[in-house]
Amino acid sequence: MSKVFDYAEVAKHNTAESCWVILYGKVYDVTDFIAEHPGGQKVILQLAGTDATEEYDPIHPPGILEESLKPEQHLGTINPDTLPSSEKSPVETGEAEQDGPVDLDSILNLDEIEQVATKNISKKAWAYYYSASDDLQSKSFNNAVYRQILLRPRMFVDCTSCDTSTSFIGNKVDLPIYVSPAAMARLAHPDGEWGIAHACERFGAMQIISQNASMTPEQIVADAKDRQVFGWQLYVQQERAKSEAMLARMKKLPAIKFICLTLDAPVPGKREDDERSKNIGANLPVRAAVQDESVSKTSTDAKTPSKPKSMGMGQSLFWGTAADLTWKTTLPWLAQHTDLPIVLKGIQTHEDAYLASLHAPQVKAIILSNHGGRALDTAPPAVHTLLEIRKYCPEVFDKIEVWIDGGIKRGTDVVKALCLGAKAVGVGRAALFGLGAGGKEGVARVLEILKAETETCMRLLGVQRVDQLGLHHINTRAVERDIYDGPAALERPSITSRLMAKL
Amino acid sequence: MSKVFDYAEVAKHNTAESCWVILYGKVYDVTDFIAEHPGGQKVILQLAGTDATEEYDPIHPPGILEESLKPEQHLGTINPDTLPSSEKSPVETGEAEQDGPVDLDSILNLDEIEQVATKNISKKAWAYYYSASDDLQSKSFNNAVYRQILLRPRMFVDCTSCDTSTSFIGNKVDLPIYVSPAAMARLAHPDGEWGIAHACERFGAMQIISQNASMTPEQIVADAKDRQVFGWQLYVQQERAKSEAMLARMKKLPAIKFICLTLDAPVPGKREDDERSKNIGANLPVRAAVQDESVSKTSTDAKTPSKPKSMGMGQSLFWGTAADLTWKTTLPWLAQHTDLPIVLKGIQTHEDAYLASLHAPQVKAIILSNHGGRALDTAPPAVHTLLEIRKYCPEVFDKIEVWIDGGIKRGTDVVKALCLGAKAVGVGRAALFGLGAGGKEGVARVLEILKAETETCMRLLGVQRVDQLGLHHINTRAVERDIYDGPAALERPSITSRLMAKL
Amino acid sequence: MSKVFDYAEVAKHNTAESCWVILYGKVYDVTDFIAEHPGGQKVILQLAGTDATEEYDPIHPPGILEESLKPEQHLGTINPDTLPSSEKSPVETGEAEQDGPVDLDSILNLDEIEQVATKNISKKAWAYYYSASDDLQSKSFNNAVYRQILLRPRMFVDCTSCDTSTSFIGNKVDLPIYVSPAAMARLAHPDGEWGIAHACERFGAMQIISQNASMTPEQIVADAKDRQVFGWQLYVQQERAKSEAMLARMKKLPAIKFICLTLDAPVPGKREDDERSKNIGANLPVRAAVQDESVSKTSTDAKTPSKPKSMGMGQSLFWGTAADLTWKTTLPWLAQHTDLPIVLKGIQTHEDAYLASLHAPQVKAIILSNHGGRALDTAPPAVHTLLEIRKYCPEVFDKIEVWIDGGIKRGTDVVKALCLGAKAVGVGRAALFGLGAGGKEGVARVLEILKAETETCMRLLGVQRVDQLGLHHINTRAVERDIYDGPAALERPSITSRLMAKL
Amino acid sequence: MSKVFDYAEVAKHNTAESCWVILYGKVYDVTDFIAEHPGGQKVILQLAGTDATEEYDPIHPPGILEESLKPEQHLGTINPDTLPSSEKSPVETGEAEQDGPVDLDSILNLDEIEQVATKNISKKAWAYYYSASDDLQSKSFNNAVYRQILLRPRMFVDCTSCDTSTSFIGNKVDLPIYVSPAAMARLAHPDGEWGIAHACERFGAMQIISQNASMTPEQIVADAKDRQVFGWQLYVQQERAKSEAMLARMKKLPAIKFICLTLDAPVPGKREDDERSKNIGANLPVRAAVQDESVSKTSTDAKTPSKPKSMGMGQSLFWGTAADLTWKTTLPWLAQHTDLPIVLKGIQTHEDAYLASLHAPQVKAIILSNHGGRALDTAPPAVHTLLEIRKYCPEVFDKIEVWIDGGIKRGTDVVKALCLGAKAVGVGRAALFGLGAGGKEGVARVLEILKAETETCMRLLGVQRVDQLGLHHINTRAVERDIYDGPAALERPSITSRLMAKL
Repeated sequence: MSKVFDYAEVAKHNTAESCWVILYGKVYDVTDFIAEHPGGQKVILQLAGTDATEEYDPIHPPGILEESLKPEQHLGTINPDTLPSSEKSPVETGEAEQDGPVDLDSILNLDEIEQVATKNISKKAWAYYYSASDDLQSKSFNNAVYRQILLRPRMFVDCTSCDTSTSFIGNKVDLPIYVSPAAMARLAHPDGEWGIAHACERFGAMQIISQNASMTPEQIVADAKDRQVFGWQLYVQQERAKSEAMLARMKKLPAIKFICLTLDAPVPGKREDDERSKNIGANLPVRAAVQDESVSKTSTDAKTPSKPKSMGMGQSLFWGTAADLTWKTTLPWLAQHTDLPIVLKGIQTHEDAYLASLHAPQVKAIILSNHGGRALDTAPPAVHTLLEIRKYCPEVFDKIEVWIDGGIKRGTDVVKALCLGAKAVGVGRAALFGLGAGGKEGVARVLEILKAETETCMRLLGVQRVDQLGLHHINTRAVERDIYDGPAALERPSITSRLMAKL
Repeated sequence: MSKVFDYAEVAKHNTAESCWVILYGKVYDVTDFIAEHPGGQKVILQLAGTDATEEYDPIHPPGILEESLKPEQHLGTINPDTLPSSEKSPVETGEAEQDGPVDLDSILNLDEIEQVATKNISKKAWAYYYSASDDLQSKSFNNAVYRQILLRPRMFVDCTSCDTSTSFIGNKVDLPIYVSPAAMARLAHPDGEWGIAHACERFGAMQIISQNASMTPEQIVADAKDRQVFGWQLYVQQERAKSEAMLARMKKLPAIKFICLTLDAPVPGKREDDERSKNIGANLPVRAAVQDESVSKTSTDAKTPSKPKSMGMGQSLFWGTAADLTWKTTLPWLAQHTDLPIVLKGIQTHEDAYLASLHAPQVKAIILSNHGGRALDTAPPAVHTLLEIRKYCPEVFDKIEVWIDGGIKRGTDVVKALCLGAKAVGVGRAALFGLGAGGKEGVARVLEILKAETETCMRLLGVQRVDQLGLHHINTRAVERDIYDGPAALERPSITSRLMAKL
Repeated sequence: MSKVFDYAEVAKHNTAESCWVILYGKVYDVTDFIAEHPGGQKVILQLAGTDATEEYDPIHPPGILEESLKPEQHLGTINPDTLPSSEKSPVETGEAEQDGPVDLDSILNLDEIEQVATKNISKKAWAYYYSASDDLQSKSFNNAVYRQILLRPRMFVDCTSCDTSTSFIGNKVDLPIYVSPAAMARLAHPDGEWGIAHACERFGAMQIISQNASMTPEQIVADAKDRQVFGWQLYVQQERAKSEAMLARMKKLPAIKFICLTLDAPVPGKREDDERSKNIGANLPVRAAVQDESVSKTSTDAKTPSKPKSMGMGQSLFWGTAADLTWKTTLPWLAQHTDLPIVLKGIQTHEDAYLASLHAPQVKAIILSNHGGRALDTAPPAVHTLLEIRKYCPEVFDKIEVWIDGGIKRGTDVVKALCLGAKAVGVGRAALFGLGAGGKEGVARVLEILKAETETCMRLLGVQRVDQLGLHHINTRAVERDIYDGPAALERPSITSRLMAKL
Repeated sequence: MSKVFDYAEVAKHNTAESCWVILYGKVYDVTDFIAEHPGGQKVILQLAGTDATEEYDPIHPPGILEESLKPEQHLGTINPDTLPSSEKSPVETGEAEQDGPVDLDSILNLDEIEQVATKNISKKAWAYYYSASDDLQSKSFNNAVYRQILLRPRMFVDCTSCDTSTSFIGNKVDLPIYVSPAAMARLAHPDGEWGIAHACERFGAMQIISQNASMTPEQIVADAKDRQVFGWQLYVQQERAKSEAMLARMKKLPAIKFICLTLDAPVPGKREDDERSKNIGANLPVRAAVQDESVSKTSTDAKTPSKPKSMGMGQSLFWGTAADLTWKTTLPWLAQHTDLPIVLKGIQTHEDAYLASLHAPQVKAIILSNHGGRALDTAPPAVHTLLEIRKYCPEVFDKIEVWIDGGIKRGTDVVKALCLGAKAVGVGRAALFGLGAGGKEGVARVLEILKAETETCMRLLGVQRVDQLGLHHINTRAVERDIYDGPAALERPSITSRLMAKL
């Protein structure tokens, strides 16, 4: 039987010389591990002598602890009665705020899912999920643009049957809706990304696994059925070897059908809600320590790209991501390390869509996305990019699949994206809020609502199959007049040569 | 004299073996009737042993009870003092909330009528009337689009006289305004659809009777004057024989001048307000029972079009409606069963308006309608469809009459629709809220207000007769730029052949 | 010395047989006058035995009482202590609500003037001034349309001097701003229309006297200086002789330089705020009595244009106005009875502006006006009509002067109207609210603010004289795209012949 | 040691015969100085016998007191305990409202800077900084127009490095952002304009010094480093000699690289917030005294351009500024008195931009500005003028630099202006609010935030250097449709000759 420690005793070991931390009720001596920590020494030292579960849990996959520490570094368990009252895991704190179990069936739409989840989850998790860059203009526009599009229901069409099945780059799925790579799902619920996979299985929906998932890919796909389709998201790391190792790991997971290379966040956007929440509930001197360094840096060398003084979770996760990707170098490098098809995520202009189409068949699809409004504020909603492609280079649709995400709240939104030519429609926050509202059952409720709304919309349009949806089912006048019509349009005859010149 | 029961005694008979219900203060033994109930067994069993008046009343025509049950099944009456306090009919509950009789003449416009009715009627009735699909975008846009149109008053025109009379497919009426087929009028007031007929008679206005009326067609037209004009709304049933029987029944009612075939709701829209209200004030396990079935269904067979777990009144009423109507099969079938002219309700695109015009003279009119925003959210307002027809196939106006409904709140709205080419303008919710505000007198007040506002508008435009109104009296610039201008427009030369190919 | 009565004694004489009323603290026996009252018997009988000052005062010019009654009908005075507390004149009630005298110089703009006046004046007066038809869309748009226009300031222009003087149909004035014919000024302040005249004199501004002024034209122009310019507004009466008599009376007033024939209100608009206020503070059975008659009328003869059951002050004033004016008959009739130039008020389309220009030189100017949004709701703001004229028949500007009113709140609004080609810019409510805020000094403050703002705007545009303002000083893109572009435009080549055919 | 006075004693010397004032705790006899005061006698007399620090401090540069008064006029010091409680300097009052020192690093954006400053500074200072003319339409539009522009991020571009350096008319700077000439900085914080200079130095940013600065130019540039770039703003005075003296003084300050001639405020705009605040906290008869004169003036001579009865700080500062500047006379006069390049501030039309370009090389740059919305309300935002130039006379960009200010709140705003062709982007209020939030450190935080946001935006667009930004990085459709398209456009072929004719 392991030894039981009081919190006061643990608290004494708060230096680099003797550094103890509490994780999941267990006490560890991590003194020797400090120097090896991939996230740097300082983070550990800031948590020395305290319960680090809240900080550790959502950003480390389960099992990694056992891999990293030796058995003798596990000293014993903490006496929970001695813990300070504020030192609880975010999950526990969150659930305490909830009044009895949520009746998921009484939730009628995605806005209500978000409301329920907002009550359930920790403030920090809410801030990470909800936040978008600057003034949240793109996040808000992502959804509003769908409201600007009108539907055109056709009458006297037999709509007894309704089939939402389709295929994504050759993989059959039951829904044109997939779950976007959304990080840190365990912030919302212990079911985490595995819970999302479980719900997707029920509805035959595809899931793209975030590189910053709070569970390992192996754990997420552990219970996958044969028919299930997964993609894996790659943020290329400054240390390419790390990324190469990950790609090698993916080869061993047959459920992973493609690599989704994320392009729209070479540097993190400015998510103020996330930054503000970083110390919520914490009485640790995290921020002050980081500040000291950066303040002095700023004053001595103002020319250096300033590293933000305070980092939200979003910024922490992105640190280390490569900012030097190019068409010329990155795709060939990728070809050396994976045979899986490539899906490029984050395309926001018709020019880049066109360039991507020139890289078929290595590139099989692009995802039009502004990263949920989390990268560059006032970036265009994906619907704009879709209309741009239609206007300036429709041949792209013939060469690669065009997927889309951002702002989806209703089945009508899904249908509108499909009418515009999108092959697949992703939801990110909705899945996370579904988790927050009710774990894997909450995610299932999200998919159930979207599927039912999508079917109702298709029937009322007079459409039986996804591939029947087209431009004649929508009126996009109100959006079209805002579409980019700039110099590139004027120079369109030479678009190919001009763009190629840049490669 | 009939026997008097205590509520406690009735409550014991709550099983399929012995099933009693209270209706209108009387106690019935419906054990033998359970299997025959057209609406299914479960609904009755859920109400077994209780006062079912609130659920029963608004969706069953008066007299049907006596037709269905044998005299010996009427056991006696309930002692009202023993009823639980919450077990009151919606009508009683509603009237209790009202402070003395409403002074109808002090109500100046339709918004105020709605406000008064909202206070008077039950929450359930309000939810059924008020609700529209999803986010209520189409419902709201239906009215807002009229605000976008400006009037163009002409001066120095003699406007001493003002004549609002016109004709609808050959039938003379005094008002260009008619009452749309609105279901469940007795939820608002015992006068029900008969009360609407009474008010219409006073103003020489036409009424279309809903197939889901809370009174029988015979009851509604019982006191009709010779000059009165009615239409009857048909939702074709999956069991065609039922519809054929109804059509046969209409032949015996000379007041019915046409059949209004509703096309815009082959499946019900998602009316969340209605769904939320379904259990208001009820302590019955209605929802849970329905859920059990659908939950298991969903998890075992996610591909089947999901039946909503919880149904509002709207969904209950629509269940059983056919979803397999087509141009090719339905109109010929209809021709076999009625000689009355056909009016097609729910046209939302110029393509369908054009197709309808090819079916003259069987089809005599179309009603541009998005079902009051209750079917598909973000469907276009009827004004859009009217402008589409003007733009792409104005010949439709020569072949059939074009009627319109949705969003009418002012006489200026009526006049604008007429200027755009509509022959008749329907109001639905306004009539129901009129009933709620003051029974048949409330409906009369609605028509009185609309008539007076319409006359004032015509006079101030410098117009004496309805047929003088035209496009030169309105400025629709702000609407025109949002009208559909998509691929169909580009392919217009071949519109006829392309559309015909689909028939 | 006159006899003093108690209120109780007066109250006994409340029948047609013996009818006393209190007016301005005096007691009159009006029994013999009832039959002769131009406004009808019923109105007097409803006030029999009471203090009628509140109802009488604002709608009868001073002195008319003495003209109408014989000396012996003046019985004595009322003992003010015996009056019921609610029986006070609106002016007294209003002033009681005010905290000390208003510091007019601390009022910086017209919105603040309205706020101060709203507190000062009676609810009834506020409702009459503030109200507009239906949903107040046109009233609100009247002002908003000026906000849509941007100014284009030019630099490096000497703006030391700034001259706002101009001329209206040959009459020199110091301001391009005039006071529109606004009725019932004494509702706001005893200074009434005379007070407006006094303020106009100080600023060299023109005033048009309303036919429904609460003072006689003679009283209003009593103290006019030689340079002062007045117009007189004519509502042609059903009994033409009455109008002819008024025209004859104007001949004797040399200060009256033109007749302003109002065309935009052949029937009154629906001003709900005004209608609602009609019984405020009154415990008289006015409304019930009127209702009885109209209810029975409605039910027996629904075809007759319905007379409103309840009339606000606006409707009372308009009753008796002719609705049968035409280009063909009215202008020639007018020519027989006056040699003064005619100004046509209420033009709202370019077609009517064009027709008016064909009647030069009898017609010397038109006023583009939607009656302050009080006639037909969603009628276009005058700025629209101005742009329509510019677009379709700019020759109008060469033949007649174009004046404009509605929505003016700032000097920049005045300047924008002038840039668009208006020669004169009218303010109506602003003058009345100025009266309400501080009598004639309040009107002066309104003009002072507008003049100062107009000068500042001219200087910052780089303009020294009113005639230098032009289209190049404004950007109207946001308005232009909403301008009428309908069938008339398409048929423009034949505009003259088509319109002439209608004459 | 100097003598100590009680407040009561000082208060007796409140006449022209014996006039004492308290300044910064010292007592002065200014009787002999009254006649010499550049700001007039009355202002001093109104403060006679009181503590004038609050009025004096923010509008007089430090040191001017010692220059103006003789040593014997300094009588002694005031006993602070005898001062009335309300007689404190605004700075002290302001700081009292603050809860401990502000943590500047916790401020994430410019809106928060303004919020913090608004709490810190005096009401009077807030009103002066915050206020804009009339209804604040232009101020609000200045920022909103940036929200209408969408960014177009390009992918797969190496954005490891990011360089914000650029040059302004030949002077190298590290940021494309400069501080606009903003007056009265010491109202916000004692660091004043010197504090702004200090912060600019840290970030290699340019500063333009306001003629109405609350410190002398010599004081502001006292600690300037060699690489620092300043401009000096000139409001030409009615007495030209004063301006000539100032220009001569600038010759001695090598840090001043150009003269910024302000054109957009020949007369002050109407800033109501500023006017309302003028007497806040003061119990001095300032206003009444000014009123007496102007009221009598208005009533006797209404034609004279009315001098405002009450002046805010803005108006006080502008009084004395010349209104007779012209292209023909002012630039040659300027050439006689300075060799520095000229930057013209306040250009608001493409016509004036074009005219300015004809005056190169004397004129080296123009600043598109509507004076922060403080001059003419509903004047266009600078972005409009920028697009106008692009549309009608793009050759301007080749001849002179185009700078821009107004409405900048985010790094994305800065980048959008640069994409549109602006070479430099000015912030005014942000610097003042930065001062208010934390003195020179607050200004540094403002620049730090803007620099970081600008870099993030550039990286996410895929841009490494400022000169790579172009029209293809933005979508301005929503703005373009509102750009001036009036008569000047129609006459474009003759734009040069027409405009030249006006010179």
